[in-house]
Amino acid sequence: MLGLPKGFKVSAVSSGIKREKKLDLGIIFSEVPCSAWGVFTTNKIQSASVKLTRENLKKRKPQALIINSGNANCFVGKKGMKDAKFITGLVAERLKIPKESVLISSTGIIGRPLPVKKIERALGDLIENLERESLKDLSLAILTTDKKPKVRGVKIDIDGKSIRLVAVGKGAGMISPNLATMLCFIITDAHISSSALREALNEAIQDSFNSITVDGCMSTNDMVLILANGLAKNELIDLKSKNFSLFSEVLKELCLEIAKEIVRDAEGATKFIRITVRGAKSKEEAKKIALIIANSNLFKSAIYGEDRNIGRIISAIGQSKVNLREEDIKIRLSPLNRRRINLEVWVGEGDKTATIYTSDLSPEYVKINASYN
Amino acid sequence: MLGLPKGFKVSAVSSGIKREKKLDLGIIFSEVPCSAWGVFTTNKIQSASVKLTRENLKKRKPQALIINSGNANCFVGKKGMKDAKFITGLVAERLKIPKESVLISSTGIIGRPLPVKKIERALGDLIENLERESLKDLSLAILTTDKKPKVRGVKIDIDGKSIRLVAVGKGAGMISPNLATMLCFIITDAHISSSALREALNEAIQDSFNSITVDGCMSTNDMVLILANGLAKNELIDLKSKNFSLFSEVLKELCLEIAKEIVRDAEGATKFIRITVRGAKSKEEAKKIALIIANSNLFKSAIYGEDRNIGRIISAIGQSKVNLREEDIKIRLSPLNRRRINLEVWVGEGDKTATIYTSDLSPEYVKINASYN
Repeated sequence: MLGLPKGFKVSAVSSGIKREKKLDLGIIFSEVPCSAWGVFTTNKIQSASVKLTRENLKKRKPQALIINSGNANCFVGKKGMKDAKFITGLVAERLKIPKESVLISSTGIIGRPLPVKKIERALGDLIENLERESLKDLSLAILTTDKKPKVRGVKIDIDGKSIRLVAVGKGAGMISPNLATMLCFIITDAHISSSALREALNEAIQDSFNSITVDGCMSTNDMVLILANGLAKNELIDLKSKNFSLFSEVLKELCLEIAKEIVRDAEGATKFIRITVRGAKSKEEAKKIALIIANSNLFKSAIYGEDRNIGRIISAIGQSKVNLREEDIKIRLSPLNRRRINLEVWVGEGDKTATIYTSDLSPEYVKINASYN
Repeated sequence: MLGLPKGFKVSAVSSGIKREKKLDLGIIFSEVPCSAWGVFTTNKIQSASVKLTRENLKKRKPQALIINSGNANCFVGKKGMKDAKFITGLVAERLKIPKESVLISSTGIIGRPLPVKKIERALGDLIENLERESLKDLSLAILTTDKKPKVRGVKIDIDGKSIRLVAVGKGAGMISPNLATMLCFIITDAHISSSALREALNEAIQDSFNSITVDGCMSTNDMVLILANGLAKNELIDLKSKNFSLFSEVLKELCLEIAKEIVRDAEGATKFIRITVRGAKSKEEAKKIALIIANSNLFKSAIYGEDRNIGRIISAIGQSKVNLREEDIKIRLSPLNRRRINLEVWVGEGDKTATIYTSDLSPEYVKINASYN
């Protein structure tokens, strides 16, 4: 596994939020304050952890991020914000940094108050264990129904300086744009401005986290964060820098890899499906059509059953409300007895294309989601 | 079973479209031309049978309706319309009525040409067997994955005349508004104008076929038709008649009963779920929220598993894009160990309400739809 970017430390413990002593609390710490940007769920109901992280990002350069799984800290009334502030306050105190420079992210059950006492008791160990070795424990601590941790890293050379970007993600169900209904934290030692991070991340998520769907269900807790502490000491990358596009491309690729990992790990999935819509008048229309196919239970069930049911694709396309002519539609579907399925749909003479990644719908998905505690 | 309205005859045969000699071709015939109205799928891709029926309804008072199951006559290029015209032409010839007074409806597999020769061969028997006895065979001939036929009838008294309305429906999957993605044919001997039928039917479908969902998937072949032949000889019911509202109410109730039957027969369903959203600012907003819950795979899987997962409801509500405040939301969910589930959601201080009927999502749904031929 690729090492951490310079100046970052991580740690994870089992605090008792989840049963069976599973890892459920993690922290990322940077020795110095970071440039940062975040993208959040567009659900009208949002976790208090999402709300506080939004607020704090506006106030200060972040230096730490605490993440818990097993509890979403959502739909718990005023206690949600109180708890989020209490926990970030404790972290700030122990790390001796301002409380607004601590971000918080939560994922898990909605509507149940965060067990703050358990988290408080675990904080000592969590912070004491901070180290530079590996993201492995942290990548496990942020999971819920995921089968596998999702970590990707890349090393690039800018101005003769070696820069690392490392991303850790979470997500297996409740996955639907926009936002991608999942968590992803990216840390880098690049020296880069927050405005450049904003531009690069907003762009990167469009073709990655906003182009995947598992079940069309949008979470209340989604969050993609990038933290850049500048310790690689490259010349500052700003919007106008010659290296901005290189950084953006690398970030985009990294986000896409994590996004694909999420789809591969989709609840109950047996297939990884790539849907490309071509010949549309606009990218939005292409994406709309690709998404309505990707979210069709009938299409997803047919792919699970390896049943070449073109009618399901046709009726989904027609449901998208995009104006099109039946005679323009062409469909190419790869053999279904493989794990990777490619569906290409031509909808007209336009030159716009969009790609969406999704999974099949299996009886296993229903079983997993029939009982989740 | 209630008898047919005066002057209507029906018949059904096995023409060989479906395997295993199942009933797959039916006809409804009225001795005299009918006032009529139809409502059709809003899918951008539509069956040629839908298109021809739309056209013919504008041209003439209908007198016959031929219905096939096993093949949707959809996405087959120009052959679709040619076949629909050929079949309605044959029916017209044999019944000695104008070809535009024959309507056609199809349901089944998309993208496969209609086996017109088989249908042509079966027409003789079909028409010869026309009789007034029972809708039973016809109600079976229009089914696809349905487990049960769906027939409802009612007798009302208007001006001392006894009027009958009989409805026969089809639908178990690919059920989502708008339209309700199913078939329903209503015949009555009421003497009523087409404009009154239009008004009454448009109104009736809103709270029935447009308020049910099984899987959010919209069909290319949906059709609700009402045919009224006037043979009850009541005073003409027009929009301004005192009896119009009575007729409308009865029609609405009849449509709702068939709609509920469709939900009860939903593919793989083990639960019948009634979702009522109250306190909304408009009926549209209430319906939008109810529908997004009803179409959430996570919610439907939890109900299947009898798992009281309020978070799934909360996150679906937030996904609806309707503006609301977390603190206004109240949820009441009936015990889950029953077949009938009631979910009531309050979303604010408004006075608008909407009710949606749906089913749970079971592993069986996926299995049924993993292989459908």
